[in-house]
Amino acid sequence: MNYRMTRYFMGQMAIILSIVLFIPFMIAIFSGEAKTPLAFGSVIAGLLVLGVPSCLVKPKNRNIKPRGGLVMVALSWILMSAIGALPFVISGYVPNFIDAFFETVSGFTTTGSTIVPNVELLPQSLNFWRCFTHWIGGMGVLVLAIAVLPKVDTDTVHLMKAEVPGPQFGKLVSKLRFTARILYGIYVALTIAQVIALLIAGMDVFDAFIHTFSTAGTGGFSNRALSIGYYNNPAINIITTIFMLIFSVNFNLYYFVLIGHFKDAIKSEELRFMLYVFLGATAVVTLSLFFNGVYNTIGEALLHGSFQVSSIVSTTGFTTANFVNWPALCQIVLFISMFIGGSAGSTAGGLKVVRVVVLSKLGLNALRKTANPRAYLAIRMDSKTVDDSLIHNIVTYFMIYIIIYIASLLLVSATSPFDFTTNVTAVTTCFNNVGPGLGAVGPMGSFANYDVFSKLVLTFDMLLGRLEIFPILMIFNPKAWRRIKR
Amino acid sequence: MNYRMTRYFMGQMAIILSIVLFIPFMIAIFSGEAKTPLAFGSVIAGLLVLGVPSCLVKPKNRNIKPRGGLVMVALSWILMSAIGALPFVISGYVPNFIDAFFETVSGFTTTGSTIVPNVELLPQSLNFWRCFTHWIGGMGVLVLAIAVLPKVDTDTVHLMKAEVPGPQFGKLVSKLRFTARILYGIYVALTIAQVIALLIAGMDVFDAFIHTFSTAGTGGFSNRALSIGYYNNPAINIITTIFMLIFSVNFNLYYFVLIGHFKDAIKSEELRFMLYVFLGATAVVTLSLFFNGVYNTIGEALLHGSFQVSSIVSTTGFTTANFVNWPALCQIVLFISMFIGGSAGSTAGGLKVVRVVVLSKLGLNALRKTANPRAYLAIRMDSKTVDDSLIHNIVTYFMIYIIIYIASLLLVSATSPFDFTTNVTAVTTCFNNVGPGLGAVGPMGSFANYDVFSKLVLTFDMLLGRLEIFPILMIFNPKAWRRIKR
Repeated sequence: MNYRMTRYFMGQMAIILSIVLFIPFMIAIFSGEAKTPLAFGSVIAGLLVLGVPSCLVKPKNRNIKPRGGLVMVALSWILMSAIGALPFVISGYVPNFIDAFFETVSGFTTTGSTIVPNVELLPQSLNFWRCFTHWIGGMGVLVLAIAVLPKVDTDTVHLMKAEVPGPQFGKLVSKLRFTARILYGIYVALTIAQVIALLIAGMDVFDAFIHTFSTAGTGGFSNRALSIGYYNNPAINIITTIFMLIFSVNFNLYYFVLIGHFKDAIKSEELRFMLYVFLGATAVVTLSLFFNGVYNTIGEALLHGSFQVSSIVSTTGFTTANFVNWPALCQIVLFISMFIGGSAGSTAGGLKVVRVVVLSKLGLNALRKTANPRAYLAIRMDSKTVDDSLIHNIVTYFMIYIIIYIASLLLVSATSPFDFTTNVTAVTTCFNNVGPGLGAVGPMGSFANYDVFSKLVLTFDMLLGRLEIFPILMIFNPKAWRRIKR
Repeated sequence: MNYRMTRYFMGQMAIILSIVLFIPFMIAIFSGEAKTPLAFGSVIAGLLVLGVPSCLVKPKNRNIKPRGGLVMVALSWILMSAIGALPFVISGYVPNFIDAFFETVSGFTTTGSTIVPNVELLPQSLNFWRCFTHWIGGMGVLVLAIAVLPKVDTDTVHLMKAEVPGPQFGKLVSKLRFTARILYGIYVALTIAQVIALLIAGMDVFDAFIHTFSTAGTGGFSNRALSIGYYNNPAINIITTIFMLIFSVNFNLYYFVLIGHFKDAIKSEELRFMLYVFLGATAVVTLSLFFNGVYNTIGEALLHGSFQVSSIVSTTGFTTANFVNWPALCQIVLFISMFIGGSAGSTAGGLKVVRVVVLSKLGLNALRKTANPRAYLAIRMDSKTVDDSLIHNIVTYFMIYIIIYIASLLLVSATSPFDFTTNVTAVTTCFNNVGPGLGAVGPMGSFANYDVFSKLVLTFDMLLGRLEIFPILMIFNPKAWRRIKR
C-alpha cells in the first residue's frame, strides 16, 4: 500500500465530506435546531483540521496498486461512515455509536435499514443528512472525488472499479475523470427532474429533496414513519415508482442515449430482463393483492403492487403499505427480487441483473445441452458471446456471495432475539442493500432491537454488499497493507 | 425412445413391485387387518396381470439411448409411486389419491414428508409399506432390477447413472451388474446390522425393522407420531444418529474398505467435509440448546442436538424433539444443512457434499486469487485436480437447482394458506428429500393442509430432488420420446 498516497487521498476525502456536511449544518442553523448545529459544526471543524494538512504535500509516488486501491476504498467507506455517524451521537438523537454507525452505513451503502424507531422525532437536519448519505453513496464518493478534485494523474481506475457495482466496469470514455463527470452529470440531471416532478405532484420542498436523494441512491430513508405511504397521493406513488426504476438502470445506457446511440440503449439485454422482472413481479403481486382482497380495486392493487416491486427490485426500500401483512406469494416475490437487485453501473444493490442473467443462461444452456447433446451453446449477452473469464468471475462471485450470506445468517442468528423469518430477511435486505425485511424488520419495524453483535454483522453485510465484497475482504489481507517500494 | 424395450422393462418393474408389495400383504393378512389385505392383494394381482405378458417377449433391439433411458427412469418412478399409492386409497386410510401419491413419492424418494396427520392410526401393513418404500427408493429400484434380474446385455448404465445420485457415477467394477450387487450387498448388510443394534437397545421387532428401513433409505417415516422421540431411549437415539450418518456416506467407500483399500476410504475429502459439517453443526446446536435452557444438561443437549443434525445432514428427517421451538440459531443451522445433504453415491438427498465442496472451493480460490493475482489455483479433490468439465457440470447443476427452487417457491406460495417460513422450508425440505420443515410443516405438523396444487408441486420437487432433475425434465422433451430406428 502507498501510505503517503493513502493519507493524501484521505485528506481530500475529509475535505469533501466536510463540504457535504455543510448543507445539513446550514439547515440545522436556519431551522433553529438546538443540539444539531454544534454537532455538525464540530465534525466539520475536526475534518478540516485533520484533512487540510494531509492534502498540503502532494506525494511524489502516486502509484496505487490494485490491492492497495481496494483497501483504500474500503477504508474510506468505513471512515466516512464512522465520521458521518458523529452528528447523530453528538446531538444525542442516537446516543449509541454502534446504532449511529449502522444508520450511517445504511445511508452510504444506500440500504435504508434503520435503527431509528420513529424517524419523525428526528430534527430536519438529521433527516436531511440521512437521506443525503444515500445520494452521496449511490454514485460513490470516490467517483465524486475523481469528478471534482484536481486531476490526480494516477491509476485511479482501481478506485473507481471498486466503487462502481457490476462485473464489468464499463469505461464510457477513455478519460476516467471525464467518465466520472458524465456519470455525475446524468445523476444530477435525473435528480433535478425528480425533484421537479415531486413538487408538481404536491410534495413540499424539503420532503421532495430528501425523498429524491433517497430515490436517486436507491436507498429508502424517509422522514415519515409511513414512508411514501404518508402522502397517500397516487401521483407521488407513480413518480417514485418510475424514478426508482430509472435509477436502477445502468447509467451507461443514459450516456448512449445522450450521444445518440439510442439503439444500443434499447436493445440492452440487462435492461429488458430488469423490465421483465418488474412487469412479471408486478403482475403477480397485483393479482395476488386483488384476489386476496387486500385492495378492493385492481387499480389500487396495481398502484401499491407496482410501487413495492419497483422499490424492491431497485433495492430502494420505500413502502406505501406494510407488506408484512400481504399474502405469502407477494412476500416470496419480493424476497426473491431482493437478491436480483438492479443493473450493474447503477446505484442499486443486489446481485445485479447482468449476473443473474448470465447465471440463469448457464443453467438453461445445460438443460438444452442435455436435450440436444450435440448442440454447441455459448452464453451470449447483447448478441455478443460472453468471455469465459467473465463467466468464471460471475460464477465465483456468486459462490463467495453465498458463502458470506450463509456465514452472516449464522452469525446474526447466533445472538438474535428474533425468529427465522426476521433473521433470514434481515441478512437478505442488508446484504443486498434493500432496506426493509419481513417479521420484526418489516416496513413498520426497525433494526433497533437487534443486539450489538448482530447489528455489527449486518453493518458489515451492507458494506460488503455495496462494495461487492472484495474491497472489504482485502482489508484482512496483510499483503495489501505492505508498503510499496519507491 | 425404444418403446418395446420400455414396455419390457416396465413389465419387469411391475413384477419386482408385486414381489415387494407381497411383504406388507402378508403382514396385513397375519395381523388380521380388515381392509388392507384386499387393497394389497388387488394391486399385486393387477401388477402381475399387466406385468407378466409384457415380459414374455424379449425385444430384439435392446438399445437404450441416453435420453430415452432418462425418460424410462423418470416414468418408472412416477408409475411406481402411483401404483404404490393404491393400497392407501383402496383401503380407505388415505382416500384422496393426490395425498396417497404425495405420501408414496415421499416414501420412494426417501423424503419422509407426510400428509398423514396421525400415523399411529394407520394399520401395521401400511406403516410397514411406508417405511419399506424408503428402503427400496434409497438405493434405487432400477439398481435393484439390474442386480436381481436376468442379465440384460444392454446400456443399462444410463439407467443406473440416472438413479445413483451425485455428479460422477463411480463405477465400482467394470461389470455394471456386479456393481449393483455390491451396492445392494453392502446395503443389506448395514440394514441387518442396524436391526440387530436396535433390537439390543430394546426396540420391538416390527419397529426395529421399519425404523431401520427408514434410516437406511435416509427417509424418515415412522409409525410413531413422536418419531424416534417416542422411545425416549438414549441408546436408540445414539444408534440411529450413527446409522443415519453411515447411510449418507458414499457407498464406494465401503467397497474400498471391503477390498482392503482402507486408506482410500479414510482420506476421502467428501467424507471429511461431511464429518466437519456434522461436528460443527452439532457443536453449535448443542451449545445453543444448552445456553438457551432448552435442555438442562449439556449431555441431553448433545444427545438431541447430534441426533437432529445427523437426521438433517443425512436428509433422513427423524426427530426426537420439536425443533420448531428451538432457538433461531439451531433452526438456521438445520435449514442450511438441508441444502448440503449427504454424499454422492449414498441414499441421502440434498445438493450432495461433493458439489458443495467444489462450489465452495471455486469461491475460496477466487478470494485467494484476488489476494495473490499471480497464483495458479486449480480445484482439487482427494489430491487430484478436478476436471474442468466436471466443474462446469456442477456449476450448471447448481444453477438449474436454484431456478427450480425459486420456481417451486413461487408456485407453492401461489395458493398456499401458510406463511413465509412454512412455504420456504416446505420447498427446501421436499426438494432436498429431507422431510420436516419449520412452521406448519414442522416435526409435529404435516403437509395435509396444503392445497392440492401445492401438494403436486411439492411431489414434483421430491422426484426432481431424488433423481437429480434431468430425468424428470427429460419427460418434457419431445425428442426423448422419438421412436428409435431399428
